[in-house]
Amino acid sequence: MSNGDIFVGEVIGTAILILFGAGVCAAVTLRHSKARASGWVVIAFGWGFGVLAGAYTAAPLSGGHLNPAVTVGIAVDTGVWGKVWVYVLGQFVGAVTGALLCYAAYFAQFRANVAEPGTAEEPVPTLGIFATIPEIRHPVANLVTEIVATVGLVLPVLAFGLTEGLGESGTLVLIVSLLVIGIGLSLGGPTGYAINPARDLGPRLTHTFLPIPNKGTSDWGYAWVPVVGPLIGGALAGLLCNAAF
Amino acid sequence: MSNGDIFVGEVIGTAILILFGAGVCAAVTLRHSKARASGWVVIAFGWGFGVLAGAYTAAPLSGGHLNPAVTVGIAVDTGVWGKVWVYVLGQFVGAVTGALLCYAAYFAQFRANVAEPGTAEEPVPTLGIFATIPEIRHPVANLVTEIVATVGLVLPVLAFGLTEGLGESGTLVLIVSLLVIGIGLSLGGPTGYAINPARDLGPRLTHTFLPIPNKGTSDWGYAWVPVVGPLIGGALAGLLCNAAF
Amino acid sequence: MSNGDIFVGEVIGTAILILFGAGVCAAVTLRHSKARASGWVVIAFGWGFGVLAGAYTAAPLSGGHLNPAVTVGIAVDTGVWGKVWVYVLGQFVGAVTGALLCYAAYFAQFRANVAEPGTAEEPVPTLGIFATIPEIRHPVANLVTEIVATVGLVLPVLAFGLTEGLGESGTLVLIVSLLVIGIGLSLGGPTGYAINPARDLGPRLTHTFLPIPNKGTSDWGYAWVPVVGPLIGGALAGLLCNAAF
Amino acid sequence: MSNGDIFVGEVIGTAILILFGAGVCAAVTLRHSKARASGWVVIAFGWGFGVLAGAYTAAPLSGGHLNPAVTVGIAVDTGVWGKVWVYVLGQFVGAVTGALLCYAAYFAQFRANVAEPGTAEEPVPTLGIFATIPEIRHPVANLVTEIVATVGLVLPVLAFGLTEGLGESGTLVLIVSLLVIGIGLSLGGPTGYAINPARDLGPRLTHTFLPIPNKGTSDWGYAWVPVVGPLIGGALAGLLCNAAF
Repeated sequence: MSNGDIFVGEVIGTAILILFGAGVCAAVTLRHSKARASGWVVIAFGWGFGVLAGAYTAAPLSGGHLNPAVTVGIAVDTGVWGKVWVYVLGQFVGAVTGALLCYAAYFAQFRANVAEPGTAEEPVPTLGIFATIPEIRHPVANLVTEIVATVGLVLPVLAFGLTEGLGESGTLVLIVSLLVIGIGLSLGGPTGYAINPARDLGPRLTHTFLPIPNKGTSDWGYAWVPVVGPLIGGALAGLLCNAAF
Repeated sequence: MSNGDIFVGEVIGTAILILFGAGVCAAVTLRHSKARASGWVVIAFGWGFGVLAGAYTAAPLSGGHLNPAVTVGIAVDTGVWGKVWVYVLGQFVGAVTGALLCYAAYFAQFRANVAEPGTAEEPVPTLGIFATIPEIRHPVANLVTEIVATVGLVLPVLAFGLTEGLGESGTLVLIVSLLVIGIGLSLGGPTGYAINPARDLGPRLTHTFLPIPNKGTSDWGYAWVPVVGPLIGGALAGLLCNAAF
Repeated sequence: MSNGDIFVGEVIGTAILILFGAGVCAAVTLRHSKARASGWVVIAFGWGFGVLAGAYTAAPLSGGHLNPAVTVGIAVDTGVWGKVWVYVLGQFVGAVTGALLCYAAYFAQFRANVAEPGTAEEPVPTLGIFATIPEIRHPVANLVTEIVATVGLVLPVLAFGLTEGLGESGTLVLIVSLLVIGIGLSLGGPTGYAINPARDLGPRLTHTFLPIPNKGTSDWGYAWVPVVGPLIGGALAGLLCNAAF
Repeated sequence: MSNGDIFVGEVIGTAILILFGAGVCAAVTLRHSKARASGWVVIAFGWGFGVLAGAYTAAPLSGGHLNPAVTVGIAVDTGVWGKVWVYVLGQFVGAVTGALLCYAAYFAQFRANVAEPGTAEEPVPTLGIFATIPEIRHPVANLVTEIVATVGLVLPVLAFGLTEGLGESGTLVLIVSLLVIGIGLSLGGPTGYAINPARDLGPRLTHTFLPIPNKGTSDWGYAWVPVVGPLIGGALAGLLCNAAF
């Protein structure tokens, strides 16, 4: 694959992933949304089907990593690092693009995030739509959670490539998207499962600049955890896969 | 494929899609339904599995577009417009047929949509079973939402055709139906995700004429948005696919 | 396939289907169940994955119809009726067996279906675990609902056999089980979607004889609707498939 | 496959299974979790996608049994017992490892399992995160439930191997993971569906030694039921498969 194809594929694929992922968080969080307060199962399936949509779309161009932790895991496993920067650049550009598309899709809802006089309706904090927030703020524990959850993503993804009958992208991406749903359901409780540096950093940056009323903090003090944790997890998974398979 | 096969396939497939889709909205909305108030996840999965049922059924006859936005997206991408009118005609006839079948399946529930003396039970508005209603009425924002969501449907659908291992219809339709579930979960919050002109216009027309007690308005003032938005989105996706892949 | 294989396959497959299907209704209905009151989405997925489990298990022996409406639909479509009686006999024996297995699995819960002194806990009616009950009792409307829902099952099932890439049983059964989930979500509201004469009649018979405390009526006055409706629907689907495909 | 590959595969696969399975129970049970109280459907899908993640990962090394009941069922069916001890040993080591990883991922949540002064928040019992607890304590009935549910798992798994088009691991593991979701939804109500001796015994042992505040009893009096029941069920399924197929 050419650098151009990889870049375009990762931009489009990651933009779709974040459009769906930030979108489902907006759908569940914002007032005046039909899916408001529809629960954790909706969040997990929305992100998972975002992976499905983005990865299949990107597959013919870049293979559809959409996640620097996956790209790093593959590089550690195979020892081939030459294209890593193209993938990661595309993923960050795509993540910012996806966050902007989510803002466009929910424009009227974001604009209406104000107190409504004469009602009990108050504006809601909006960072959780774009980036992850830990339930208990404890950097070491949060880092460990992100490492474990990312190993739980990247080790299976690397092993799936070796599993008979999953094809090049055919069934493989479907299985990966269900895996991502499982990680959300099972390991998303403590930190909201970034498991992807681009997924957290790109939209957090977008949140910082978007003109959303009552948007609340962008919480940059926490931003390193969902970047460093998934990178460590991806590298660990690459080492483990290299040793065991 | 002959024009006759295409027409029959799109009628049957779209009728099944709308039977399931309007059906799940009836199931969640109407009193005296076992699924009453069972939430947004039920809506999204009901519509998605309606796509699955309708598209697989139509596949041997017409390929199973079931959506003018998909048909237009393919035409923009490929430049072949000769059969578009047959597809779109079949889709609208099918959508009206499906809305009538939904009415038949929920006949007793529709007939019982009256105030029950001595109880707090009141009739419910029924348009939402047939057509989409925005949470915040803002034509430009609603149009943008429908455009973004339709690009999120049609761009992947066009790219999937290029993805190795998805087969002609085998796994492809399954993936598309999960994609539609994802769009519902993630991007359905603001407008109820028409993403399909036939899906909205056909049942809205049916709603206008059906003898449902206390059915409420058919809201024709909004009807252009879920027609124009998805057509723009489908065309944009066709252009984007043509440029990137 | 020999008559013996068909019979054994349909008994085992239908027993598994009803074990899962009656099981999920018991799980949601009975007190002292971890899944109590977990809602319609659990019911629909439980029945659907019961089809998945039963049909894949029966596939190597009988093809896995598990439903007289499917068997009749195939016979009407193909004109071959010689084995229909073997299929239907196996399906009824299997349905009774599955209902007994569900009773065994939930034995302690069924035995505990009594009022608990000093609490507000009352026994619950148990027929809904075994057989279907309409929300609004209106024989013609109920019959129409069952006919429409069964056409929505059997027409796609027949057409799927003609769809490229679904294989002999490989992906086919998976798609059918998701289709059954969709019918539950979308068309189960009015009557509880029997869509299968064996699924309703076998367990209703079992309910009549089981020694469950406070079990309530077996409602034999309604029993003809979920037998006749699905048979008409299956035959209609066979005619439609024969005409259109 | 070599004994070493089998052992490593079962350790890694079962560790992933229990990480996801115990993880989803922690997510739903513990305070300060984003998925708290999100219901039975989340539990069932979390365990099912844990099977998906673990079994695909283990498939290239050991075939991915992850469950002594499956290993015993295959041995009874085929009469080949030579490798059973390697599988079972790997499964128990993996189950303990997975429980430890779950503890690490939810470390801050476990540490916060204390009464919060000035609020109504009380610590929650934690055994249910690691091992199964019957709703009604009745050893014979609980044993029967585990036997029936395990036959409902292992008989289809054995039959799936004979079903055309499921491939060696390709679609097969996906179907098995949906089957496990179905068992959870339908047959998990009475005992919490161990259906796997390693899944229950390994994490129960881990729970006994972990320093969790207010962790409550490890309930060793019940521990034999989720070991003996699934082993009987697996053996019965092997016999039944051998006779019928």
